[in-house]
Amino acid sequence: MILRPPHRLLIEPIVRHALEEDLGRAGDVTSDLIVPAEKRIAARLVARKPGTIAGLVAAECAFALVDPSLRIGIETADGSSVVAGTVLATVEGSARSILTAERVALNFVGHLCGVATATRALGAAVAGTRARIVCTRKTTPGLRVLEKYGVRCGGGFNHRFGLDDAVLIKDNHLVAAGGIAPAIARVRAGLGHMAKIELEVDSLGQLEEALALGIDTILLDNMAPDDLKRAVALTEGRAVLEASGNVTLATVRAIAETGVDYISSGAITHSAPNLDVGLDF
Amino acid sequence: MILRPPHRLLIEPIVRHALEEDLGRAGDVTSDLIVPAEKRIAARLVARKPGTIAGLVAAECAFALVDPSLRIGIETADGSSVVAGTVLATVEGSARSILTAERVALNFVGHLCGVATATRALGAAVAGTRARIVCTRKTTPGLRVLEKYGVRCGGGFNHRFGLDDAVLIKDNHLVAAGGIAPAIARVRAGLGHMAKIELEVDSLGQLEEALALGIDTILLDNMAPDDLKRAVALTEGRAVLEASGNVTLATVRAIAETGVDYISSGAITHSAPNLDVGLDF
Amino acid sequence: MILRPPHRLLIEPIVRHALEEDLGRAGDVTSDLIVPAEKRIAARLVARKPGTIAGLVAAECAFALVDPSLRIGIETADGSSVVAGTVLATVEGSARSILTAERVALNFVGHLCGVATATRALGAAVAGTRARIVCTRKTTPGLRVLEKYGVRCGGGFNHRFGLDDAVLIKDNHLVAAGGIAPAIARVRAGLGHMAKIELEVDSLGQLEEALALGIDTILLDNMAPDDLKRAVALTEGRAVLEASGNVTLATVRAIAETGVDYISSGAITHSAPNLDVGLDF
Amino acid sequence: MILRPPHRLLIEPIVRHALEEDLGRAGDVTSDLIVPAEKRIAARLVARKPGTIAGLVAAECAFALVDPSLRIGIETADGSSVVAGTVLATVEGSARSILTAERVALNFVGHLCGVATATRALGAAVAGTRARIVCTRKTTPGLRVLEKYGVRCGGGFNHRFGLDDAVLIKDNHLVAAGGIAPAIARVRAGLGHMAKIELEVDSLGQLEEALALGIDTILLDNMAPDDLKRAVALTEGRAVLEASGNVTLATVRAIAETGVDYISSGAITHSAPNLDVGLDF
Amino acid sequence: MILRPPHRLLIEPIVRHALEEDLGRAGDVTSDLIVPAEKRIAARLVARKPGTIAGLVAAECAFALVDPSLRIGIETADGSSVVAGTVLATVEGSARSILTAERVALNFVGHLCGVATATRALGAAVAGTRARIVCTRKTTPGLRVLEKYGVRCGGGFNHRFGLDDAVLIKDNHLVAAGGIAPAIARVRAGLGHMAKIELEVDSLGQLEEALALGIDTILLDNMAPDDLKRAVALTEGRAVLEASGNVTLATVRAIAETGVDYISSGAITHSAPNLDVGLDF
Amino acid sequence: MILRPPHRLLIEPIVRHALEEDLGRAGDVTSDLIVPAEKRIAARLVARKPGTIAGLVAAECAFALVDPSLRIGIETADGSSVVAGTVLATVEGSARSILTAERVALNFVGHLCGVATATRALGAAVAGTRARIVCTRKTTPGLRVLEKYGVRCGGGFNHRFGLDDAVLIKDNHLVAAGGIAPAIARVRAGLGHMAKIELEVDSLGQLEEALALGIDTILLDNMAPDDLKRAVALTEGRAVLEASGNVTLATVRAIAETGVDYISSGAITHSAPNLDVGLDF
Repeated sequence: MILRPPHRLLIEPIVRHALEEDLGRAGDVTSDLIVPAEKRIAARLVARKPGTIAGLVAAECAFALVDPSLRIGIETADGSSVVAGTVLATVEGSARSILTAERVALNFVGHLCGVATATRALGAAVAGTRARIVCTRKTTPGLRVLEKYGVRCGGGFNHRFGLDDAVLIKDNHLVAAGGIAPAIARVRAGLGHMAKIELEVDSLGQLEEALALGIDTILLDNMAPDDLKRAVALTEGRAVLEASGNVTLATVRAIAETGVDYISSGAITHSAPNLDVGLDF
Repeated sequence: MILRPPHRLLIEPIVRHALEEDLGRAGDVTSDLIVPAEKRIAARLVARKPGTIAGLVAAECAFALVDPSLRIGIETADGSSVVAGTVLATVEGSARSILTAERVALNFVGHLCGVATATRALGAAVAGTRARIVCTRKTTPGLRVLEKYGVRCGGGFNHRFGLDDAVLIKDNHLVAAGGIAPAIARVRAGLGHMAKIELEVDSLGQLEEALALGIDTILLDNMAPDDLKRAVALTEGRAVLEASGNVTLATVRAIAETGVDYISSGAITHSAPNLDVGLDF
Repeated sequence: MILRPPHRLLIEPIVRHALEEDLGRAGDVTSDLIVPAEKRIAARLVARKPGTIAGLVAAECAFALVDPSLRIGIETADGSSVVAGTVLATVEGSARSILTAERVALNFVGHLCGVATATRALGAAVAGTRARIVCTRKTTPGLRVLEKYGVRCGGGFNHRFGLDDAVLIKDNHLVAAGGIAPAIARVRAGLGHMAKIELEVDSLGQLEEALALGIDTILLDNMAPDDLKRAVALTEGRAVLEASGNVTLATVRAIAETGVDYISSGAITHSAPNLDVGLDF
Repeated sequence: MILRPPHRLLIEPIVRHALEEDLGRAGDVTSDLIVPAEKRIAARLVARKPGTIAGLVAAECAFALVDPSLRIGIETADGSSVVAGTVLATVEGSARSILTAERVALNFVGHLCGVATATRALGAAVAGTRARIVCTRKTTPGLRVLEKYGVRCGGGFNHRFGLDDAVLIKDNHLVAAGGIAPAIARVRAGLGHMAKIELEVDSLGQLEEALALGIDTILLDNMAPDDLKRAVALTEGRAVLEASGNVTLATVRAIAETGVDYISSGAITHSAPNLDVGLDF
Repeated sequence: MILRPPHRLLIEPIVRHALEEDLGRAGDVTSDLIVPAEKRIAARLVARKPGTIAGLVAAECAFALVDPSLRIGIETADGSSVVAGTVLATVEGSARSILTAERVALNFVGHLCGVATATRALGAAVAGTRARIVCTRKTTPGLRVLEKYGVRCGGGFNHRFGLDDAVLIKDNHLVAAGGIAPAIARVRAGLGHMAKIELEVDSLGQLEEALALGIDTILLDNMAPDDLKRAVALTEGRAVLEASGNVTLATVRAIAETGVDYISSGAITHSAPNLDVGLDF
Repeated sequence: MILRPPHRLLIEPIVRHALEEDLGRAGDVTSDLIVPAEKRIAARLVARKPGTIAGLVAAECAFALVDPSLRIGIETADGSSVVAGTVLATVEGSARSILTAERVALNFVGHLCGVATATRALGAAVAGTRARIVCTRKTTPGLRVLEKYGVRCGGGFNHRFGLDDAVLIKDNHLVAAGGIAPAIARVRAGLGHMAKIELEVDSLGQLEEALALGIDTILLDNMAPDDLKRAVALTEGRAVLEASGNVTLATVRAIAETGVDYISSGAITHSAPNLDVGLDF
């Protein structure tokens, strides 16, 4: 898969905002007072733990915004899995500037590598099955674009990016509409041909009803592996099947072996522990 | 301690941005197409796991921004530790509006309760010692103000909010300045009386030098408990001592028992797993 | 079809920006100097020509932003087709405020009704066929969300909202990829299950290749009606077909009668003449 | 006349916003997935229909914001009238970047050339008279600065840019003030010497009253050519006269031949059809 | 003269920005920690020195943004000249909220009253002459709209608001153009009828040239009173005359008595000392 | 002391906003119409009066934002005290660009040099005493960061930057808390180790109470020199003492001679007259 990070026009405002958050009103008073303006250093971004890399472009952006004269070298490609001690990037130039940008750069990289690493772990657990790991809208507010990229770096796939780029009909929508058929009818009457529709079902009965209506993308919510297996058999390839609910490293293999196409996890974005990445001088 | 959430002027732009991120260009197409405009519901925010509560004000803000006519009731105070099943808040009004705001509201609450819960766990582990748990600048970009509040809800204390509201002199600053004495001299020459100065040391020798210079706030970085004990003894109350490095649930008690005043943890903000909070209709 | 305007959170910044553009630095100096503060009036938004209505919510937003105490009444539903002289909305309150907001309110309404009216005209021309009128990304910069809504008010359907919410593979993409098969392969390898893929073809040969690859949404670009008919026959319902190119009131009926599912037009957004709407006191 | 486009500081935020509108959250997924990063192309912006050129600077800005390494050459000066097939500009560099920026660049150029072309047509119709074509505040929300420039490129002149940079007293102001004399008195008492005052009149009686009060800029609203002629005669050069209302290509010559100084048209900004401009590879 | 403050849409972003500047990331930590949430107070904004009042609307806006439930009463009209001890406004409600907003509210009021007071002083010094006091573009960055209003509150008049709402031809423009005649010709060729043109001259020779070209608004720069008198005589009412340069309380009367129409001062905006205004509980 | 201006990331938005304020919608119409695009000039920023220099970086930023191709040379270091006629900076390049940026650049420099000059004057008056001059939060809205830097350029020190970076307990807080002891207790219970606490007292009795509680930073508000002397004696070095109230050039020496450590002045930021700086061609 091609790993292209979000366009600079999308990342830069997020990184700029994070720098403003850290600089506050007075900026980096410690470095400004102590470090001579002419002092130059070379530093390396190093993974202190093994993991999968993502988001070095955000670190690069942080250093460049603080000081366009810094020279940054990316040493490890996003999507790589590395051992502890691997140099991810280098940065050379004004010591003040590097110290000022350091924390923000690391905060991005540590978080996004954490997302990629957690995604990779789930992906490894389902290796050999047809299942793809996919993320959700359970992302950290303000960072969705970057976290979705972190998921791709970990070998995962992206679900919809927001409420507006695809339809996902959940139980509460069905209650409000009075059932699957009227809900689908309303959506089909109002939407053009370029929007995907997915229906969440929680029973085999609902699944049958959905298939009968020609729904081609179905989310099986909180079903036990045995029911998932039955769902796969019943579907006979007529729809793409996504499983969600209770997805952990301990359970994901069994879910994948039922034959579903996608397994979605909120934890890979909202609960992934930071990967420990440091800046060495 | 008084728990006052960040002022609405500080929270609202963050929540508004998160809503815009989720609404995209076309808004909640699923609910718009399926849910009748006049449909009204009542829903409850419920903790699905035990934990410490923080940030309900962000959820409240999300619902109010989406629809000022929604009626929101806070049922559980921030800072409370609750059992699974506890109702945290209620919301009543337009079904469409509630469904549109749901995910953003939950993303904030789940994350901030996660921070509070992780902080509370460290705090509980050091109960009976003098040590206070304190956070760092290792926060999620864009959410520092809210995460710092989550730490307070978990019984922790806040370290500086950014590069500008206090001086923290680290090893690289000392290298650049040519030692502790010149670094301190530069800071004292340039700063007024309203800025705190903390010095990071990694040996007892440095600690002695710092105390001799009258530094009253010192960060002991990555010292083993035995060295921390020696540091406490050597200091004799002349300075506030903060310990950092390798702080986990397994190690924190031993660190606290050395007699240090503060123990800082990045994990409580950057690696706290989400607390599972859902919206029940 | 349900006509729900874009969420207030999406419209308000656009309307606010338009007001700021008109108020400049000094505001409405004419009204401020001449109209007494206590003077109150009632005014009516009136269509001076026949047309289809859209976007009264933007006018409402303009009046409310200028003065929250104004009372606005919507008299005609978006999506209605009206005769000249129809009252669309009423507004009562401070004369100064109404005069200050008037132009911006009318600029939005005139433009969006123009879009709806142009869409309705194309739709009427294809009545009785299976073809739906659909818009494009050829929209006025900054107004896409509102223009897409204007299209829906005119009975049309929306194509994708931007570069990111669906894949549309055009001739230049095929050249860069080295053909249809490799282009499709790359997209399928990288995209999850929630993104629609449409392929633009300009010959029956390409269409056959696309169908063989299982592409289910195809854009037939600039084909003459006879070729479109052949394309429909060849497809046999295996894909949704969209026709584009040289779509005018004069040509659209013939295109629709070929049996295509969608006909896309840039003119309904980028070249729709304003509907003349005035404010009567 | 000197044709200087709006300053980059004024244009760039508008273009950036349009790009963000098109990129959404995920950016140009099609090009990102299909087009190799190293692929380079040269493309030409070509007018597909005859018209008057305006706003190439906005296209240039769009390409530069997407990718500062693109090389853009302006081949046709703003204000030129060209035949179909004329190359307006060239762009060379990353194929991905050019494809990503293409639509936004074309949306600006097509619209602004449309404005210039419509203005030029009116201007041509009044050639040989003293009348100048002038625009209004009936502009597309958010694009006023650019559309006013489009008018200048078409040989037209700009009326005021907003509510604040000149006084324009209309019928409703007169009603609120109780007549022309008190309205003028209030304005003269409150305004300094650097603001222009124009009075709208709709009868020869009002015109006489205005001239008696020394008003030197008068808008004759919705008067028939015969009345306009009388107004010109009556004025005897004591004031600049602007005619408005029912201005079309069919009527404008007759209006101009009455001897008025300015003829204002909203249609040249709010109803100008797009000029068809494409990007050829 | 009618004193209408800038529209709320123009003021609110300025006041909001000032509050964000003061609240920083953590807000009013002192009041949050010390003042009980339920504590209510009543306070009065009081002038501690005599002066002319301006900008209470900015204070009102600051209190309302911090806490919409505060009740604010304006006791003294903008434009009034008051003695020390006069109550300007009252505010009642949450003690925390009032303390949080206090400094920002006072910073605006103190500054704007300072501007009004300085303007009033110059105006009083020229009482009985025809001269009006007028401001310049020498304003505090970010506060022009409010300072221009402060000038009006002090009985002064506003010069242009920016580079764009009128033409002011200065010596450097003349040098670049090659003289007065070509400069004027270029402006007249490019500008419509709604923009004022003022020409700066520094000699009677230039004045004569300007009058001969029909320029009706002329700035006499840095001329001594005797020359100003000669200029007035030479002009014979054919143009509005503005005097600038070396305008102080000591010199302004002599300048006014030469018969010029306007006297412009940068000091009333950029060097006006704050009026001492406090908040009493 | 090291004089480092605020980081470019903090200054640029302020300068950009000031330029937008001056350019309005249409930009510098005078220069655009009159000055040929190819005209180049060299100009010098010159102090017309003696004073202390601050903020040339803001002027540099203004020129660079208007036209990145301008070449700017800083000739005088911030913090220098200069005689009338001193060249502060040079700028070379497009005449249009320089004329467009001129006023904004001068508005910043004139104001910030004014702040530095006023601060220097107070500092000179207390030369030889231990007292340092310190600013307050009585700053011009929107310019705090720059004015605080102006104070440093004048040899002064900065007090807190906002409500959030230190605690300052005033009389109203004491009233709300019920006295000094409970106020201090609440602050100590809620704050971590990195926030400074200052207590304002207005009597020697309060001072004694504060010292007994171990408060190490105390503001003596509005005390006469005799009382200040007593306060210094009573304190015996146990706390840093700041004096405020009635600080003028006439009074500041006497205050300093009492032995206090800091003397705070609002006038150096809110009432400093502009330093006259011009641009010579």
